[in-house]
Amino acid sequence: MTNVTIDGERLWGTLMETAAIGATAKGGIRRLTLSDEDRRVRDWFKAACEEAGCTVTVDRIGNMFARREGRNPGLPPICMGSHLDTQPTGGKFDGVLGVLAGLEALRSLHAIGYETNAPLEVINWTNEEGARFTPAMMASGAFAGVFTEDYVLSRRDRDGASFAEAIEAIGYRGEAPVGGRPFSAMFELHIEQGPILEAEGKTIGVVTGVQAIRWFELTIRGADAHAGATPMRNRRDALAGAARAVLAVEEVALAHGPDGVGTVGILECRPGSTNVVPGEVFLTVDLRHPLDSTLACMEEDLRGRLAAVQGKLDFELERIWVSPAVHFDERLIGHVREAAERLGLPHRDIASGAGHDAVYVAKVAPTTMIFVPCREGISHNEAEESTPAQCAAGAQVLLNAVLAFDATLEGSAR
Amino acid sequence: MTNVTIDGERLWGTLMETAAIGATAKGGIRRLTLSDEDRRVRDWFKAACEEAGCTVTVDRIGNMFARREGRNPGLPPICMGSHLDTQPTGGKFDGVLGVLAGLEALRSLHAIGYETNAPLEVINWTNEEGARFTPAMMASGAFAGVFTEDYVLSRRDRDGASFAEAIEAIGYRGEAPVGGRPFSAMFELHIEQGPILEAEGKTIGVVTGVQAIRWFELTIRGADAHAGATPMRNRRDALAGAARAVLAVEEVALAHGPDGVGTVGILECRPGSTNVVPGEVFLTVDLRHPLDSTLACMEEDLRGRLAAVQGKLDFELERIWVSPAVHFDERLIGHVREAAERLGLPHRDIASGAGHDAVYVAKVAPTTMIFVPCREGISHNEAEESTPAQCAAGAQVLLNAVLAFDATLEGSAR
Repeated sequence: MTNVTIDGERLWGTLMETAAIGATAKGGIRRLTLSDEDRRVRDWFKAACEEAGCTVTVDRIGNMFARREGRNPGLPPICMGSHLDTQPTGGKFDGVLGVLAGLEALRSLHAIGYETNAPLEVINWTNEEGARFTPAMMASGAFAGVFTEDYVLSRRDRDGASFAEAIEAIGYRGEAPVGGRPFSAMFELHIEQGPILEAEGKTIGVVTGVQAIRWFELTIRGADAHAGATPMRNRRDALAGAARAVLAVEEVALAHGPDGVGTVGILECRPGSTNVVPGEVFLTVDLRHPLDSTLACMEEDLRGRLAAVQGKLDFELERIWVSPAVHFDERLIGHVREAAERLGLPHRDIASGAGHDAVYVAKVAPTTMIFVPCREGISHNEAEESTPAQCAAGAQVLLNAVLAFDATLEGSAR
Repeated sequence: MTNVTIDGERLWGTLMETAAIGATAKGGIRRLTLSDEDRRVRDWFKAACEEAGCTVTVDRIGNMFARREGRNPGLPPICMGSHLDTQPTGGKFDGVLGVLAGLEALRSLHAIGYETNAPLEVINWTNEEGARFTPAMMASGAFAGVFTEDYVLSRRDRDGASFAEAIEAIGYRGEAPVGGRPFSAMFELHIEQGPILEAEGKTIGVVTGVQAIRWFELTIRGADAHAGATPMRNRRDALAGAARAVLAVEEVALAHGPDGVGTVGILECRPGSTNVVPGEVFLTVDLRHPLDSTLACMEEDLRGRLAAVQGKLDFELERIWVSPAVHFDERLIGHVREAAERLGLPHRDIASGAGHDAVYVAKVAPTTMIFVPCREGISHNEAEESTPAQCAAGAQVLLNAVLAFDATLEGSAR
């Protein structure tokens, strides 16, 4: 086995150095995609990669590919990366860690003149967050053929500025075509954005895929009535029905635990007066499970439980969105698990609950992810926090998995 | 027993005739207090009472007292009445029935020259609805000493007009002082505004009082969390807690049935995003029972049930309003019950769930109410509907109860 050690202090230094670009008073980052702060961090990243012996290519929607050549120019690159943009009040680690850990890997290899079989690339995907231009993961999606380049360029922010205008303004409209760029593999290191690893004392999450998601809207109709003059038995109280629906969602999730989750995130109650029995409630349901088949069972279970509690009310459940499960590449998952194991790092398999650039990249290349813990699962928040040791562990697993996979490739062109 | 029969057709005719004053396209009435429509119905009422041999006195806040003298001028009057103002999209019966049934009683007595022991008065209370000037039941409240005359006169509508200006504008600022006017009794006939009588096939509600009411605000605090990345066991889902609270309110009401009621009318859920576990919920609780002591138990029961379901959440329950139960005069209740019984009208004792002018009058005089059914309990709505037979039955019970009570009074001055 190869034995290259990343420099955890240097990695932490780059995290803190780039965190100054768009730094907020509360310790977070505001670095909206294609803003001047985004330009500054891109300039920083490009210079750092070039200093580590890379050439940087930018495609027509701003995706950046920092390439370090390998022994065999015929092999597609092994890629690492994530995104450098943030939420409006984002943290210092979401996305940034995956890019800067890739940079740290390149620097560590560069320092000792290590030669890989395949080229390596560190990628900064444009607009993962979707906070300024929707949808999220837009540029990795276009790379994978999910969105067209024209669609991406035409998107507008709330002030009316188009993506095309914004990317021209910061000078990151590159010349490389979008997509059609084969990868040997793609590894994305990311903070978990959930509490599981921390709660279980694990340092590394071996990400096996992304949960399947189904979204629903439930409208419950009863009858408005006077809260004083209407006896309980005469009521058709839509909110009492909604309460049973909320608990039914919880029961469905628990019945398909520990991996199933179910959430009612929005609940609106009409007419909304202290002394009027609510006649109508609207609510949303978000069900997720790592397996599509189990998620389908959860939907059936939900429908059955709702039918059982609707009583004299009208329940109208509409499924509005389905996102199938993503299963990452088994070989790459194996390299991550083995890297964590050999480093003696506590680890567990985990399905990502959130979307990531890797979800789209997985459509066109062997892909996997590595998670490290973040404090209390807090993310998309200035209080987002991972420790230097956790970041270093993730970066070391990333590099070791990349090198282990690289060792399976041919060292010279056929 | 006396035997005076009211004219149900004539009563219905006056209901329909006055319903034309402020009639809406959907069959209701828009007759806001102290509006020109209010002036017109007051003018109509004054003329009709004078034609039936009454003299009409108006007090300084517009309350109208149409007096028919009795045999014994030393006795305070026996009063009937309610209000002629309506909600912005009100019905034809709420309040109006109680005034016009009083008028019908006067007309019936006048037609046969019937002489009572006590004087009779039919009252039109100003601004019961509180739709233009808040609070509701303002003028009967001032009559009973709950509000001062100055307070009433200073209230302003949404356009900035004061009650004082509005009452001057329609010419109904009378000269009689507000209150200090003894009554032998006050009977208010009103539609139920609830579904109980209709559901049970009763024509007359013998109103024993008005429910006690307690209002609460409940704030539930948990933690916002990612709907995908947060396992069920790690959640502090404020909405799941709120669902349990809503059902606890229902359980409290049912445990103190059939008279106890409990309503969550407002529920607000934050932050309100499909894929975010809600971290905070605000909701209102309205508990009512005819007995103060039972309502106090219901509050204790609610606190206990909330404590039992709060789990890892913070529940903050604040009592924001207490309205004690009103118990009407037992003798007057007895006269109403007996009148219904003798007329062979199906009846039941009932506690009013809503507030009425009689609630305030009960503070200063023996008072009771009579309910008649309204279709499906619908009120404060243009679809409000009672049948001619129900209105006539209510008016007959009203008159018979008044005459039965009158018969207990002395026929000449001592």
